[in-house]
Amino acid sequence: MINRHIVLRERPEGRPTAHSFELKTTPLPEGPVDGVLRRTIYLSLDPYMRGRMSDAESYATPVSVGQTMVGHTISRVIASSNPAFAPGDIVSGYDGWQDYGLSNGSTLRKIAPSRLPLPAYLSVLGMPGMTAYVGLIDIGQPKNGETVVVSAASGAVGSVVGQIAKIKGCRAVGIAGSREKCEYVERQLGFDVCVDYKSPTFRDDLAAACPDGIDIYFENVGGDVFKAVVRKLNVGARIPLCGLIADYNETELPKGPNLRFLLVKRAMIRGFIVSEHADRQPAFLRDVGAWVAEGRIKHREDIVDGLEHAPTALLRLFDGHNFGKLVVRVSAENA
Amino acid sequence: MINRHIVLRERPEGRPTAHSFELKTTPLPEGPVDGVLRRTIYLSLDPYMRGRMSDAESYATPVSVGQTMVGHTISRVIASSNPAFAPGDIVSGYDGWQDYGLSNGSTLRKIAPSRLPLPAYLSVLGMPGMTAYVGLIDIGQPKNGETVVVSAASGAVGSVVGQIAKIKGCRAVGIAGSREKCEYVERQLGFDVCVDYKSPTFRDDLAAACPDGIDIYFENVGGDVFKAVVRKLNVGARIPLCGLIADYNETELPKGPNLRFLLVKRAMIRGFIVSEHADRQPAFLRDVGAWVAEGRIKHREDIVDGLEHAPTALLRLFDGHNFGKLVVRVSAENA
Repeated sequence: MINRHIVLRERPEGRPTAHSFELKTTPLPEGPVDGVLRRTIYLSLDPYMRGRMSDAESYATPVSVGQTMVGHTISRVIASSNPAFAPGDIVSGYDGWQDYGLSNGSTLRKIAPSRLPLPAYLSVLGMPGMTAYVGLIDIGQPKNGETVVVSAASGAVGSVVGQIAKIKGCRAVGIAGSREKCEYVERQLGFDVCVDYKSPTFRDDLAAACPDGIDIYFENVGGDVFKAVVRKLNVGARIPLCGLIADYNETELPKGPNLRFLLVKRAMIRGFIVSEHADRQPAFLRDVGAWVAEGRIKHREDIVDGLEHAPTALLRLFDGHNFGKLVVRVSAENA
Repeated sequence: MINRHIVLRERPEGRPTAHSFELKTTPLPEGPVDGVLRRTIYLSLDPYMRGRMSDAESYATPVSVGQTMVGHTISRVIASSNPAFAPGDIVSGYDGWQDYGLSNGSTLRKIAPSRLPLPAYLSVLGMPGMTAYVGLIDIGQPKNGETVVVSAASGAVGSVVGQIAKIKGCRAVGIAGSREKCEYVERQLGFDVCVDYKSPTFRDDLAAACPDGIDIYFENVGGDVFKAVVRKLNVGARIPLCGLIADYNETELPKGPNLRFLLVKRAMIRGFIVSEHADRQPAFLRDVGAWVAEGRIKHREDIVDGLEHAPTALLRLFDGHNFGKLVVRVSAENA
């Protein structure tokens, strides 16, 4: 059997291109399987992958040049010498951009059959959903009646942030990059309002959307959106800082906002990484699992077919051209 | 009787000058006193006063042009129709830059006789000391063995921050603006080390002073000092944001740091204003009062004689030329 895998060909300067990646093929070992062999069904594409392509200081080790790109996956076990796994089991893992994974299985988690589509375990019930949960609940600490603003509101994290905000009795205001996305955020996800940051009237639109100011700003984006939000922060505002995708492809880190607003508003910003809040996973799965099952939290996946299209799909993510959680279908669910 | 008072003559553009102020004289009302009349003994000069001279958005109402400058004061009651106060009582209040205060007394607090010098009630046991206490203990949350860095370390707030850090079992690293101030911080205040931010080797000196990185940075200053500190922050660092004096006289607010470091270090910045933590005053007076009485916290006041010199003294504060808590002696203690 041949394993296709996509490696980092070279570290990009600025925006990655298709040339940053290379598809390689390697035969899988012959003979009886030692460990758990699984076929990748879905591969998650996420903004953090840009950081892994760079060797600038970050919170995780970068992918080496020539190494297979990392990523969360949902797979089907096809052979196993580990009694905890049997062929046909569906597992989530961190197999990266490739057709097959092979390991002793210690980092795999079995996914019990349910009515939820499998890609949901990479979005609303996976890392993005838990990022939304930890950032909003633990760091933002929303109170009934407050206004919560979230950037990248139609995305995998932002869409869950706003829907949890509504469940917590808050006004949920989204920021997204097109009228189409804003309509989805308002009509399908049930945010109170969503404003288009590409509109020439963005600042006024945001102000009009937040008549009582902003108590929590869940930050995914950075750049000019941040500046517009700062003007409307209330005293005591909290800013869970999840990502700064607007800066990820900059070759030189742009300057940030003067911090005086934090004094004037007695506001708080805190950066966080979901992997350091693993103790919250049971509460997350209990709460968000129930809300999804009850239909109170909706989710949408943007499925791209074929491992070979993962590079161009990731570039679309940085351009904001995806719509919903970006997932690559590497093989058919019912193969 | 004539009351001298210093008013804001005009809003400064950038750095204030002596011309920003004007000394005026007004006769006090004749006849029996209605309320509590007191003679100012000490007037506190503090960085926040620059903000009150400006009409830019801030956390407090600005002083109007023509209005007496605000400020904390220690005074002696000279006449009173309020039975709670008697002539000779020493009171702290907020009478501002003038010889006399007159009000119903509702905002005055009596200071019981003690062995502490009166100016200490404007510094270590006053607003600056409580700012240090709330910012370090409540927002910084120091743990035994951590490294605490504080800018303006010889100043009224910074000196108390470092000494409380030592009491809490932390490594205390000061940043100050001259070799003389650094020696005072190390030898008199007992910080582990103090580095001179005006030295050409400042960045290396700071790195050498923090071999285990920085867990808490108590920020009084902003600007380039902040940038140097950011490079050494540990994962999970906390930054109580107390002031940004480096920017206070800028006509245009300079850009700030890119916020990526908050993500990389999962760090937190929180702006705070001591007046919003009044519930902590009993604990502050109990703890810091005891530490001062036991000689574990030292303090130093920089006393300037004469109300008429308050404007030039405040300008020295912005240039970093004061040494210790800046206080104006408006009249003699034993008048």
